[in-house]
Amino acid sequence: MGYIKGLKCRECGREYPVEPIYVCEFCFGPLEVAYDYNSISKAVSRKKIEKREKNLWRYRELLPIDGEPQVGLDSGFTPLLRADNLAKALGVDELYIKDDTVVHPTLSFKDRVVSIALTKAKEFGFDTVACASTGNLAHSVSAHGARAGFKRFIFIPASLEASKIIASLVYEPNLVAVDGNYDDVNRLCSEIANKYRWAFVNINIRPFYAEGSKTLGFEIIEQLGWKAPDNVVVPCASGSLLTKVWKSFKEFRDIGVIRELDTKVFAAQATGCSPITTAIKQGVDVIRPVKPSTIAKSLAIGNPADGYYATQVIKETGGYGEDVSDQEIIEAMKLLARTEGVFAETAGGVTLATAKKLIEAGRIKRNEVTVICITGNGLKTQEALHGHTAVPYYIKPNLASFEEVMKTIK
Amino acid sequence: MGYIKGLKCRECGREYPVEPIYVCEFCFGPLEVAYDYNSISKAVSRKKIEKREKNLWRYRELLPIDGEPQVGLDSGFTPLLRADNLAKALGVDELYIKDDTVVHPTLSFKDRVVSIALTKAKEFGFDTVACASTGNLAHSVSAHGARAGFKRFIFIPASLEASKIIASLVYEPNLVAVDGNYDDVNRLCSEIANKYRWAFVNINIRPFYAEGSKTLGFEIIEQLGWKAPDNVVVPCASGSLLTKVWKSFKEFRDIGVIRELDTKVFAAQATGCSPITTAIKQGVDVIRPVKPSTIAKSLAIGNPADGYYATQVIKETGGYGEDVSDQEIIEAMKLLARTEGVFAETAGGVTLATAKKLIEAGRIKRNEVTVICITGNGLKTQEALHGHTAVPYYIKPNLASFEEVMKTIK
Ligand SMILES: Cc1ncc(COP(=O)(O)O)c(C=O)c1O
Ligand SMILES: Cc1ncc(COP(=O)(O)O)c(C=O)c1O
Ligand SMILES: [Zn+2]
Ligand SMILES: [Zn+2]
Repeated sequence: MGYIKGLKCRECGREYPVEPIYVCEFCFGPLEVAYDYNSISKAVSRKKIEKREKNLWRYRELLPIDGEPQVGLDSGFTPLLRADNLAKALGVDELYIKDDTVVHPTLSFKDRVVSIALTKAKEFGFDTVACASTGNLAHSVSAHGARAGFKRFIFIPASLEASKIIASLVYEPNLVAVDGNYDDVNRLCSEIANKYRWAFVNINIRPFYAEGSKTLGFEIIEQLGWKAPDNVVVPCASGSLLTKVWKSFKEFRDIGVIRELDTKVFAAQATGCSPITTAIKQGVDVIRPVKPSTIAKSLAIGNPADGYYATQVIKETGGYGEDVSDQEIIEAMKLLARTEGVFAETAGGVTLATAKKLIEAGRIKRNEVTVICITGNGLKTQEALHGHTAVPYYIKPNLASFEEVMKTIK
Repeated sequence: MGYIKGLKCRECGREYPVEPIYVCEFCFGPLEVAYDYNSISKAVSRKKIEKREKNLWRYRELLPIDGEPQVGLDSGFTPLLRADNLAKALGVDELYIKDDTVVHPTLSFKDRVVSIALTKAKEFGFDTVACASTGNLAHSVSAHGARAGFKRFIFIPASLEASKIIASLVYEPNLVAVDGNYDDVNRLCSEIANKYRWAFVNINIRPFYAEGSKTLGFEIIEQLGWKAPDNVVVPCASGSLLTKVWKSFKEFRDIGVIRELDTKVFAAQATGCSPITTAIKQGVDVIRPVKPSTIAKSLAIGNPADGYYATQVIKETGGYGEDVSDQEIIEAMKLLARTEGVFAETAGGVTLATAKKLIEAGRIKRNEVTVICITGNGLKTQEALHGHTAVPYYIKPNLASFEEVMKTIK
């Protein structure tokens, strides 16, 4: 049914069968899904895709499942907003927001990867799913996992935003708050994954899970009228999303869905956790791990698993990377809201603030088509705004009291 | 271009031109939009609708605009989930969740009414929009209004949830917090609307605004495969949404898009603010205003403008009304999350808890098709859950610490 040939080591090229494994036994390189692109290019066309339901499974031939989609039938196909107000504010001609603040059901792009991971977990016969999360993944696995009938173990850094904790707890998973940062959580989870037969979506299911991020890229191309943009700005935590957006663009070209591809890929990080953009700016290949300290907690991965591959995509495409301060993040969150009516989480602030910097530096050209990936909803990180917005006018319930306010306005 | 004949008094039938007015000068009845259904039935077909973009404007002939849609081109067409897990938990055969927790951009059904209201405000030439809100409308007018380039005055009760306040403030409207409940806010806004030439979406634009709620009903019918359900459960604040869902069903029948219509409409309220369901249960036509006291703040309208008309719909269709305690609301929020992966705000808890009660009482039959309208996202009312969910397991970042937790699980 599916088009997977197997798993393949990204480093030494060794091949593996389709199993819940993720590391090459020989060189410890990460495994990636290999497809039969020949058959896919015969099976897929714009027309065929366009006829399907508007969810992320419309690109199913390029997703690593064998049977029918089982999870996330309402996830994906989020709006691509033409952002003319924002374009004007930034001084560019043609700008788009890929708006994953409204993904069903948990309002971040993680619903994409989780849809694929849990469908695959079902195919593998797991009854328990798990994850190490900076917040959004916790929310998504808790929700999708509940509906799909899985037992769920969710591991988070104890310092996560209150909104993300409550948003996971309401689904009644086993939520484990670890006294440490994400990298500590992730290390612990690797140990746990060795011991329990669970589908850890971003550990032993990672090769399949990560493919889900391609749907963001597929949608961008389809929604631009089957064209790739000149520039795409992507937030990075582990670096996986960025590599997969690029992979999706290349796949669409390779199977003939688009002809031309000349996109520059740009990485966005918070200065308080910028191992990837630092490597890019220094022009080095080695990612030096950091101890994160930023309000963009969903991006706070100090030792990014796919950081190296992200830097290679940047190089390959002629893109660049930038990072931004907490203050710039908040300003960008407000700018996006005020101009385009979109309330993004801190990660969205990172991406927009980075785009702004790249435009000002001339790295992103003002006359080119640029897509900014906004990957999570602002209601999830409200606390970051406390003290950084105006306050309401407080009045008594009468006209005189309101007129006092009016005197101060304009 | 449009199909509006004019405005018409719901009480005395007197007709008015299409203007930003809302009360009959003769009898003080509310004005409603009157359409030329003859022309509409010639202009609309299932096929034609199906070919259009999946947003709320696909039903544009039945919406009160003259020109092209200008606001909310990404709003609407939210998922209708077949809720088999929940159906099992409630002991019914076929149950659906109309899931407005993911409406673009502000995650409640208010994005529907605001899309129409602001398009109409543009047609009328207003440069300033305003509203009296229980929270979701504030959020939506702030966001849509920002993108559409309006000056915005947003009036809320000062006691609103922190999430809804910050979610409005980020868009930088003029946010006015009134020391009083919604009914006080609304009274004050009527005075202000008389004085300033603003488009108050739920006051002088109300006849047009309210029509936007019909899109929820149109979508339900289309998504059920062009069939009306046997039962629909609708949360009530002012009662407008409920009357418009019923109106949408009748319109689809009257213009021939569906043949049969035999739906019972049910009203859901919180016991702490149940003027409408109390009237229904007492079998009286007079709505007695109340002072609201409930965690379902978005439904906390003690003196509901359309309460009487809501009771008439219930009577006409053979439906009923129920109300539920704060404890039942929270339990229902958790039930919905755990079974279907949907995190609804308190209003969603009201609707589901009410549906459960109606099923248990035999008012909703177990073998019938029922749709539950979930109208807002749980991230907006997180504080209602504080102290009502489990807490995380707190551990050190090592396997031994996790194993201690495992001993306590199962
Ligand atoms: C909102 C948001 N955006 C972007 C990312 C980056 O994802 P990746 O780890 O694939 O780089 C994350 C990761 O958690 C996220 O939560
Ligand atoms: C989430 C939610 N559901 C339902 C309603 C009910 O709307 P109506 O006033 O049309 O009855 C409201 C009103 O604010 C709301 O915010
Ligand atoms: Zn290898
Ligand atoms: Zn009248």
